[in-house]
Amino acid sequence: MRNYDKYVALMGKIADLSHATGLMHWDTEIYLPKGASAMRSRQIATLSGIVHEQFTGTEMGRLLDTLVGDESLSPEEARNVELTKRDFDKEVKLSKDFVEKLSAAQSKAFVNWVKARKADDFAIFKDSLSHVVTLRREEASIRGIVDEPYDTLLDLYEPGLTTAELEPVFREARDGIVPLIRQISEHEQPDKTFLHTHYGKDAQWDFGIDILKAMGYDFDRGRQDVSAHPFTIKLSPTDVRVTTRIDENDFLNMTWSCIHEGGHALYEQGLPQDQYGLPLGQSASLAIHESLSRLWENHIGRSKVFWSHWLPKLKERFPDNLKGIDLDTFYRGINTIAPNLIRTEADELHYHLHVIIRYEIERACINGDLEVRDIAETWNRKYKEYMNVDVPSAADGVLQDVHWSHASFGYFPTYTLGSFYAAQFFSAAQSQLPDLESGVRAGDTGQLLKWLRENIHVHGRMYDPKDLCIRISGKPLDVRDYLNYARSKFSRIYALESQGISAN
Amino acid sequence: MRNYDKYVALMGKIADLSHATGLMHWDTEIYLPKGASAMRSRQIATLSGIVHEQFTGTEMGRLLDTLVGDESLSPEEARNVELTKRDFDKEVKLSKDFVEKLSAAQSKAFVNWVKARKADDFAIFKDSLSHVVTLRREEASIRGIVDEPYDTLLDLYEPGLTTAELEPVFREARDGIVPLIRQISEHEQPDKTFLHTHYGKDAQWDFGIDILKAMGYDFDRGRQDVSAHPFTIKLSPTDVRVTTRIDENDFLNMTWSCIHEGGHALYEQGLPQDQYGLPLGQSASLAIHESLSRLWENHIGRSKVFWSHWLPKLKERFPDNLKGIDLDTFYRGINTIAPNLIRTEADELHYHLHVIIRYEIERACINGDLEVRDIAETWNRKYKEYMNVDVPSAADGVLQDVHWSHASFGYFPTYTLGSFYAAQFFSAAQSQLPDLESGVRAGDTGQLLKWLRENIHVHGRMYDPKDLCIRISGKPLDVRDYLNYARSKFSRIYALESQGISAN
Repeated sequence: MRNYDKYVALMGKIADLSHATGLMHWDTEIYLPKGASAMRSRQIATLSGIVHEQFTGTEMGRLLDTLVGDESLSPEEARNVELTKRDFDKEVKLSKDFVEKLSAAQSKAFVNWVKARKADDFAIFKDSLSHVVTLRREEASIRGIVDEPYDTLLDLYEPGLTTAELEPVFREARDGIVPLIRQISEHEQPDKTFLHTHYGKDAQWDFGIDILKAMGYDFDRGRQDVSAHPFTIKLSPTDVRVTTRIDENDFLNMTWSCIHEGGHALYEQGLPQDQYGLPLGQSASLAIHESLSRLWENHIGRSKVFWSHWLPKLKERFPDNLKGIDLDTFYRGINTIAPNLIRTEADELHYHLHVIIRYEIERACINGDLEVRDIAETWNRKYKEYMNVDVPSAADGVLQDVHWSHASFGYFPTYTLGSFYAAQFFSAAQSQLPDLESGVRAGDTGQLLKWLRENIHVHGRMYDPKDLCIRISGKPLDVRDYLNYARSKFSRIYALESQGISAN
Repeated sequence: MRNYDKYVALMGKIADLSHATGLMHWDTEIYLPKGASAMRSRQIATLSGIVHEQFTGTEMGRLLDTLVGDESLSPEEARNVELTKRDFDKEVKLSKDFVEKLSAAQSKAFVNWVKARKADDFAIFKDSLSHVVTLRREEASIRGIVDEPYDTLLDLYEPGLTTAELEPVFREARDGIVPLIRQISEHEQPDKTFLHTHYGKDAQWDFGIDILKAMGYDFDRGRQDVSAHPFTIKLSPTDVRVTTRIDENDFLNMTWSCIHEGGHALYEQGLPQDQYGLPLGQSASLAIHESLSRLWENHIGRSKVFWSHWLPKLKERFPDNLKGIDLDTFYRGINTIAPNLIRTEADELHYHLHVIIRYEIERACINGDLEVRDIAETWNRKYKEYMNVDVPSAADGVLQDVHWSHASFGYFPTYTLGSFYAAQFFSAAQSQLPDLESGVRAGDTGQLLKWLRENIHVHGRMYDPKDLCIRISGKPLDVRDYLNYARSKFSRIYALESQGISAN
């Protein structure tokens, strides 16, 4: 057996174990009996430990040593080896002791976060969060710091990303979004009361399935279920599942989650099937993943052409709710912009301010520029400053997200980067597909999917996110595509005066 | 760390992996997308392989060597070690090569069985079945034969059971059941048309849940789903799941499966929680497991006292279907005895003839007394002889069960033994619980559950099945308890003349 084949077999074995763990996560979110959590956590921890052991074990190390630089490998094989070596080097740096210490601190922080949120009292969470921050700062030191500790963590979620690149992007975004929001806030809000009448559960479910099918999601290699927090998970290349949630007083909740998770799932279903367990069978990065969900959600799902096809179908299912609502009224209603407290309920523009606030706070904490005890106050101040929102409680403020209790610092930026990439990729698709709009108007997104398959999905991790971005759009990440899209769209919806920036 | 604690930790790790595999099986039967089977099989095979490696590995061998005979162990600890050593010795006997060879033969046999059944042509299955039989005969040689090869396989499913013990039990059973069935066949059949009107799915589901709750099944530590073939599976001591199937033209299908699987699940939920992954946390044997499902199904679920409580509740849900049906008519209707072709649809009496025919055939095959090419003919002859049933096709005859294609020879007898143990255990419960009948009539099976918990569930594998039987009922397996129960019950239902054997 060639060493490369041995490597493929070992990676496949690790993938089998990871996907078994994935199924346990899936089941935990959807079907786990309430008394079964502790044992399930134990089982997940055991399998995760075995995955870590196998991935960082001597067999893997030995195989990689023989394969790195092996000139008999094809370019794809060499890329798999290169990326696995990169991942391996990252994972072996942490000792088992440190991993266990961090894991224990996380578990404690999560428990205290749940308590603190319930009691609406940040003080309950503070000390265990501090401990987690300390450990992740220590982790950054172990892994090696180039410019600042936060960069080291950022790189774990979005390989190659640094704050030096991120900071100007976020500054430009903030400086573009904040005045746009202010301008909108001076205009009258469109009517959206028709969105909040009673929409029956079963009809919503069926409508969501229709949309997923129309997007090209393959139900023979996936399924949808209901969970509290919608998510997408790959259990094998032939088993990519999505979940949705249904709110009977807000059908948009289900609709956006179907389209968003559908976008994630189409990516996973479009990755190369023959690269099981290997980097080329995986998504390019978290931000690229998010870009593909946001592209579908924002640029297709929130567009007028999309609803010119789907509104009549929605009306068939909900004739009473939508009586007399024309396309324009509907389109304006589903695209209202208004400040809010909760990130996951935010509109397309405010969403980024929610993320940027988190980024600024977590970066300062990890770099040692902000004490954990001061973050609630900082949070509230920034919400006032960026969005003119008063935060009435810690539960709806600094305690609203689970991420920090999971020790995830450096994750939030990928959400917003995803939207920026999405605008840039969609702009590229528009210029390359002249019939895109008329297709979507006729309910056919097939050519977009084909374009995504060929330009993004099929490559897996063949290219680093930055290189992939250039291949797709001819330039590195450029937030102006997003800002142009946003200004153009909302100028029309809110009849804003021109701000001197041309909209496409 | 004590060696015993190391052993407990290793067994726990193996249990974590096994239960992850269990979840994959559960999901496969219920929720797996149809295009995902091949990858799922691969993942299950990988995890099963790791479980086998860990269980038969040098670490386990070394730990067991230090622990067997260690006098510092408590009786429970010593029993765990003793049983693990017994299981270990069985598992290590087979080489990895042999296991893989058997596994490949099984996969091929299963594929051909599916094809043969579809085409209704035994010839398609014959050769791969022969190959499986040859390998299992080889396995018996490797493991060691005392009296006959079949015994060696029997012992894998029901530890300690031999054909020498089984044969007289089955002979006595057959000699008791065949004339009883013949006698019944000469009497008029009760009306049961009311069982086959249309029973709505949702109301059936709710009724099943009500029964499971009343039995004491803990939904905080389990759940019910729908699958083609009902089953019970333990995913952890706090997560024991059941499934049911719903036939809208036969509500008994769902009712029996709920009660039957409920009986299995109560056993699993009643095993010692603190013996995770250890023999004392496991069921005593397959036959004992089956006895606990059959006890609930036959002795509670098919009894008149049970329905004196539940029939009014069933009528509330299905008033039209059951209008004018009184308890006696209902009870006779659900207890009709009539020959049939399919084991899984058989009544309480014919069921055993189905099993005994399979046992006789598989025993002869494994012992080399019957060629695989002749089993269809033998099958049909025995169906005619024991049940006066003409087998019209291989699909509804020798090809109806999956077991042999899975290489399971020696499994079938545990089904029938389960019913015989059930009658014996229930008879013991009746004599020890004078209020049992009045409790059941009032819808309260709590004292039965308590009795089962204390006398059976809580012991796990502390006692071998035979010893457990004596502890519970004061004597070894005695088929007369079953025959007395059956004669008494059906003599009343069919108003049979006394056969000179007193019924209790």
